[in-house]
Amino acid sequence: MSDSTSQPLSTWVEVPKNSDFTIYNLPFGIFKNKRLSPRIGVAIGVKIVDLSVLDQEGFFAEMFLPEGIFLSDSLNEFISLGKAKTRKVREKVQELLLAENGELRDHSIRGKVMVNRKEAEMLMPVKVGDYTDFYSSIEHATNVGKMFRDPENALLPNWRHIPVGYHGRASSIIPSGVPIHRPKGQFKDADMEMPAFGPSRRLDFELEMAFITGKETKMGDSVSTQEADDYIFGFVLFNDWSARDIQAWEYVPLGPFLGKSFASSISPWVVTLEALEPFRVSGPEQQPEVLDYLKLDQPSNFDINLEVFIAPDGKKPSKVCTSNFKYMYWSVAQQLAHHTVNGCNINVGDMMASGTISGATEDSYGSMLELAWKGSKPIKLETGEERKFIEDGDTVIMKGYGEKDGIRVGFGEVEAKVLPAK
Amino acid sequence: MSDSTSQPLSTWVEVPKNSDFTIYNLPFGIFKNKRLSPRIGVAIGVKIVDLSVLDQEGFFAEMFLPEGIFLSDSLNEFISLGKAKTRKVREKVQELLLAENGELRDHSIRGKVMVNRKEAEMLMPVKVGDYTDFYSSIEHATNVGKMFRDPENALLPNWRHIPVGYHGRASSIIPSGVPIHRPKGQFKDADMEMPAFGPSRRLDFELEMAFITGKETKMGDSVSTQEADDYIFGFVLFNDWSARDIQAWEYVPLGPFLGKSFASSISPWVVTLEALEPFRVSGPEQQPEVLDYLKLDQPSNFDINLEVFIAPDGKKPSKVCTSNFKYMYWSVAQQLAHHTVNGCNINVGDMMASGTISGATEDSYGSMLELAWKGSKPIKLETGEERKFIEDGDTVIMKGYGEKDGIRVGFGEVEAKVLPAK
Repeated sequence: MSDSTSQPLSTWVEVPKNSDFTIYNLPFGIFKNKRLSPRIGVAIGVKIVDLSVLDQEGFFAEMFLPEGIFLSDSLNEFISLGKAKTRKVREKVQELLLAENGELRDHSIRGKVMVNRKEAEMLMPVKVGDYTDFYSSIEHATNVGKMFRDPENALLPNWRHIPVGYHGRASSIIPSGVPIHRPKGQFKDADMEMPAFGPSRRLDFELEMAFITGKETKMGDSVSTQEADDYIFGFVLFNDWSARDIQAWEYVPLGPFLGKSFASSISPWVVTLEALEPFRVSGPEQQPEVLDYLKLDQPSNFDINLEVFIAPDGKKPSKVCTSNFKYMYWSVAQQLAHHTVNGCNINVGDMMASGTISGATEDSYGSMLELAWKGSKPIKLETGEERKFIEDGDTVIMKGYGEKDGIRVGFGEVEAKVLPAK
Repeated sequence: MSDSTSQPLSTWVEVPKNSDFTIYNLPFGIFKNKRLSPRIGVAIGVKIVDLSVLDQEGFFAEMFLPEGIFLSDSLNEFISLGKAKTRKVREKVQELLLAENGELRDHSIRGKVMVNRKEAEMLMPVKVGDYTDFYSSIEHATNVGKMFRDPENALLPNWRHIPVGYHGRASSIIPSGVPIHRPKGQFKDADMEMPAFGPSRRLDFELEMAFITGKETKMGDSVSTQEADDYIFGFVLFNDWSARDIQAWEYVPLGPFLGKSFASSISPWVVTLEALEPFRVSGPEQQPEVLDYLKLDQPSNFDINLEVFIAPDGKKPSKVCTSNFKYMYWSVAQQLAHHTVNGCNINVGDMMASGTISGATEDSYGSMLELAWKGSKPIKLETGEERKFIEDGDTVIMKGYGEKDGIRVGFGEVEAKVLPAK
């Protein structure tokens, strides 16, 4: 892959200004359209490269890929080929898209290879085996601790020693664009004598990012922080929908369950770890010093700008949050090392989300719970409405991108509309 | 299927006295041996019925099953056919095995159909999509509350209103016979100033049962308690291995994670809901009255005797616990109704475990934590050893069976040996 510090790369494909899908990005996803069955594509500007057609035409011939590998409704098998191969595929696609390369540009197959992104429907990129959600933003954990526990002792004693996490529900992870229903459940507010049942009154988003594992381990084995990169295929934006009233009543002592399991929305393009390398930065200093198995030997955070918008039904979106993935106290390498240190095995296609990514300032909080501080400070939208939580008809949109030295690599967006309870 | 109150059934297959695998049971599982690749079988006495051979010989011809449905390394696709079909297959197998039926007994293919159970290796019966663990024994929850919280207020306020549960790790569920390694992790005892890392010092079992879902739902839909039976394919024994020291340090506020995710062991034969019907009983009275969506219109507990044994390395097993599945405060129908009431979708092959099944008496507690009361009352084994928790080299064995009116239906066993930390 070309060195980002050398001559800037350009492509013969139309890439609008501020597009997330530049020649430096080239994320993988599963798409279909009216004509085409689900298959693997790579996003570039306004187009998707249909890898199955490239493959049929012999462009990957020297790689000896399994037949039909790109005619799949998930990336799992492709990712399982290993980084040596998947990286080569991405490099080959980049090479073919370079402005000066006529191999595909001037080929008669070009029209069949390049699909309009606007006309494509994006599907779940992977079949998620297990899904884990961490709780790795110190600002988020502190805010929650201040609201629900002790403002003077907001962080629990274990927080600075372990990347706290829990298992989530994999079946209800859905791609951007799929609407969700407001969940129903049990809740018991402080002023209620007995619990009641009904639609959640406090539906929230959580701004997160998630990585997708690219290599399996055997039970009993662990992945060190040094080895972690080898096991991380790529990243997506992750909206961990949360019903705060259901969650508050159910979560003691075994953690969040129905307050989360009704839906999680992800962006459909998997941005590879390689594409994010230019944005690698050091995370916050960790005090006290972490145990040996959590120590890092390289910067392991990523400078990715994150934004959340709310669009009331039929109205324009208002930005409600500006955060950054680099704020994470615990990095993905530490999350993966911790997750496997007990011998828990991972599979290709596992998803591990960051937990809500909040920053230090009030406009950088990654959930309505924090932005409107438990409902006490409603947020004003540009359209004039106020919001304490998410209302029926609202669409929540999250965006994320890195930008550095003229290189932009982004995730597109994850959006979902909230429909009334069924 | 024959009515249990009529003439007792007998079979031409050798079924030892007290065998769990009687003509009334006929559980499904995945087996292989030196000669045969993984496939679906039904257990009967000392034999396994190789369904793939029966199918090839046309015994299921009138059912129009998909070709090769039994030549699979999981039951998922078979279960997905729906109860109408899977029940017919089981009924046909029972009919063929009846003492008076010569169709298979006298057929030249019999030797190929009937495989010796002793020579078979049992594999995971299903590919588990999502795994959920409940906490549904009131005696267990009370014991834990007494030990770690307030003896006077042992149950948390939500416990009698919701079947508390959490998502567990699906990837590390393994079939009986596979040894586990003692997990490593972080812990911080009350007398330690800083957390330490090392092999768990308090490894425990949890005696549980789990059901396997047999029908999917769409996101947003719910399964009522009345519909639950339709979505439950069958049951297995479940040992929810737990590292108490790791769990105690990590579990606040998001629940158990690495203290559980290193391994869970299950019995390999899936006993169908139909086979357990004779053992259906009412559960304990629920006070206060539960919310409408949790109300039951039929007895929904099952009278299944449960036993746990510990065998120190190279020594004979000692029984350490005698419990019963009927003690569950929350029934499986209530668990499933609760799990889906928020619209969380389920898939075929999801596993939902009960939580530790403890009874009222001290010998019926389903974990070492309770049996040896946090290490304060070591258990004496028949071999002379004492145990506070599980030691390296120990094998933990769980058994379960129902017995009524001359009918015995059992689960065989789930056993696993504990190897030293890797």
